[in-house]
Amino acid sequence: MTERKELSPSERFQLITANLQEVLNPEIIKDIVDNEDPSKNRPLKVYWGTATTGRPHCGYFVPVMKLAELLAAGCEITILLADVHAMLDADKCPPHLVDSRVDYYQRCIQAALSKSLKVDISKLKFVKGSSYQNSPEYGMDLWRILSIVSVHDAGKAGSEVVKQEKDAKMSGLVYPLMQVLDEIHLGVDAQFGGVDQRKIFTLAKDVLPKMEHKQCAHLMNPMVPGLQGGKMSASDANSKIDLLEDAASVKKKITKAEAVPKVEEGNGLLSYIERVLLPASNLITGTPLFKVERRDEEPLEYSEISKIREDYRNDVLTPQLLKSGVVEALNNLLAPIQKEFQESTAWQELVDKAYPPPVKVEKVKKVKNKGTGRPGAAKAEGERSQEEVTEKLEKLEVAA
Amino acid sequence: MTERKELSPSERFQLITANLQEVLNPEIIKDIVDNEDPSKNRPLKVYWGTATTGRPHCGYFVPVMKLAELLAAGCEITILLADVHAMLDADKCPPHLVDSRVDYYQRCIQAALSKSLKVDISKLKFVKGSSYQNSPEYGMDLWRILSIVSVHDAGKAGSEVVKQEKDAKMSGLVYPLMQVLDEIHLGVDAQFGGVDQRKIFTLAKDVLPKMEHKQCAHLMNPMVPGLQGGKMSASDANSKIDLLEDAASVKKKITKAEAVPKVEEGNGLLSYIERVLLPASNLITGTPLFKVERRDEEPLEYSEISKIREDYRNDVLTPQLLKSGVVEALNNLLAPIQKEFQESTAWQELVDKAYPPPVKVEKVKKVKNKGTGRPGAAKAEGERSQEEVTEKLEKLEVAA
Repeated sequence: MTERKELSPSERFQLITANLQEVLNPEIIKDIVDNEDPSKNRPLKVYWGTATTGRPHCGYFVPVMKLAELLAAGCEITILLADVHAMLDADKCPPHLVDSRVDYYQRCIQAALSKSLKVDISKLKFVKGSSYQNSPEYGMDLWRILSIVSVHDAGKAGSEVVKQEKDAKMSGLVYPLMQVLDEIHLGVDAQFGGVDQRKIFTLAKDVLPKMEHKQCAHLMNPMVPGLQGGKMSASDANSKIDLLEDAASVKKKITKAEAVPKVEEGNGLLSYIERVLLPASNLITGTPLFKVERRDEEPLEYSEISKIREDYRNDVLTPQLLKSGVVEALNNLLAPIQKEFQESTAWQELVDKAYPPPVKVEKVKKVKNKGTGRPGAAKAEGERSQEEVTEKLEKLEVAA
Repeated sequence: MTERKELSPSERFQLITANLQEVLNPEIIKDIVDNEDPSKNRPLKVYWGTATTGRPHCGYFVPVMKLAELLAAGCEITILLADVHAMLDADKCPPHLVDSRVDYYQRCIQAALSKSLKVDISKLKFVKGSSYQNSPEYGMDLWRILSIVSVHDAGKAGSEVVKQEKDAKMSGLVYPLMQVLDEIHLGVDAQFGGVDQRKIFTLAKDVLPKMEHKQCAHLMNPMVPGLQGGKMSASDANSKIDLLEDAASVKKKITKAEAVPKVEEGNGLLSYIERVLLPASNLITGTPLFKVERRDEEPLEYSEISKIREDYRNDVLTPQLLKSGVVEALNNLLAPIQKEFQESTAWQELVDKAYPPPVKVEKVKKVKNKGTGRPGAAKAEGERSQEEVTEKLEKLEVAA
């Protein structure tokens, strides 16, 4: 871990708002970290939520990378491990496994931030949804928001993250409202999420003042294609890369990734370099670097995504070279997590407990993932293998 | 109060299910009060809910009459005073008045049952919604029911009691689900309500077993027209009769009631005699009697509604006579409540606290009442006079 220089208030503000597609109410952030009266500056409190349904995979590095930047910018981060949501989605997470999965998620995210991305996590905390979402105070606020928000507006807020289906459950309408309340009950200044959460964030902006609560800022990551590109097949257990996947398996999966020569569109590897590998290198070493070894030539070295994309379009950086560079960088990112896992008996026991081998595997329906949000993701029937669980249940391949 | 003879199990069952439009799962009731194995018999636990928004009026005698019968049949009655619902409907009940209104409702209903109808209320208890609807156990069940019931089914369940409007609030979808959960969290065997609650009751039948809770029975009162008949105008402060209204005022309001000679339809007085005055007389004296004094003739005396209706159709019982009979009987019913009120300084102070005089009266929108349910009743804007509040906010004129 390189020693980082102390950031100035304006550099903090720049880093907090960097690499995002959109920021709502940046003035709220500026007032807190880069105030005209510097004595008023304090760490920005940011919340990010994830439902502990499946199993964190490499797609998690997209939001985690931004969380690392926020920590580097001195923010206090609260990660909501949404166990109530998970528990209620029994198709995705049998209720008796929820607590173990919460622990497993926490270990993975902690290791990714502190070991892979080497940021100081002393200002990172994890909160379980069940620790406050069943409290009388939360309950009263829930009744209040339900009496303020129309059915129409609740449906609109969740439309990008909740699967729209004929027999959509009430929870799909209520979860976005909970996400609004979480901002208040977690006591944060800002919420971070994928841009698919935008309508929930604008609802929060609109509704919280009506409830005499303060407004928060909102930080939005862009949506990016999955790491392996193209349409991911839910029934293909190989289409996601687990954080604990060994180097050979990572290589095998990346080699099979979709990468049409010279065509950027639908190429998830290029997006992953842009959103994860280059900024990770920058955060870890102070310099963004994506390096591709070549057999009989000098390695290709890039510090900018534009140059990588240009070389890809011109086939200087061929799909094969691109893949070998990603395999190398990704395995470097995963290695510290896996080292920690190998050294921790507790973690090893935890993974067995949280993701027990299936009792039986029945025919599994094809599932289409949608959005990065917590609620209402795709469902499948019957019990599944661990790979299938990993496969189906994660939704964060695409963005925050 | 006449001494009542001890009822046999089958008489209990008969009385519990008497005078209702419909009973769902009567076998649940029979198993509890008239079991094949008499050693298994126990008092039936029944719940009825009312939102403490406006102010109880004479329409309340319709459900209260049935509650009296249930008490007479040995049932344990829980009355849910839905203060959470009331509080969230700030248009109807400013939050700081809710607690006083809860107390006021309780006193009114207690007095109506024990003083007017003279039933033993030792098996009657009142529960405030806020005493358990914000508990973690209730919260967890709420998340569960939200994840089980579809938006479509929740909307259908509330369609008779929740005002259907373009910007209908989320609460209108959630309140019917709470009413389902209340059966479990109040620990009852049966829920009583107007037949307009039928879709909520059938949802409960359907959903509770899915949540591994037991099914309850459901007792439904028919819908009856308002006491004063015809279309009640919300802006007419005279259209409802308060329980504390003096005898002269009752006479004045009843005299103005709609009663087309010889036409039964839309005549709320006939329905009130059928649903309240005759059964009240039966309960109090052991004999149903509706008596109409006449100036120069013998009084008319009825023990059956069919005979009253027949005489009304034939104009033997003219609208004027009908009204004078109702005024007499209704004032007799209200007198014991008002006597208790006059004797209780605490109650007198309470009414001032619960229904303070208005600060200002702004233009009030016309409001159309719908249904007997707790949620989603009509709303008006601005502050109103006490009469207007009484007027607008009560929905129980029509039935349970």
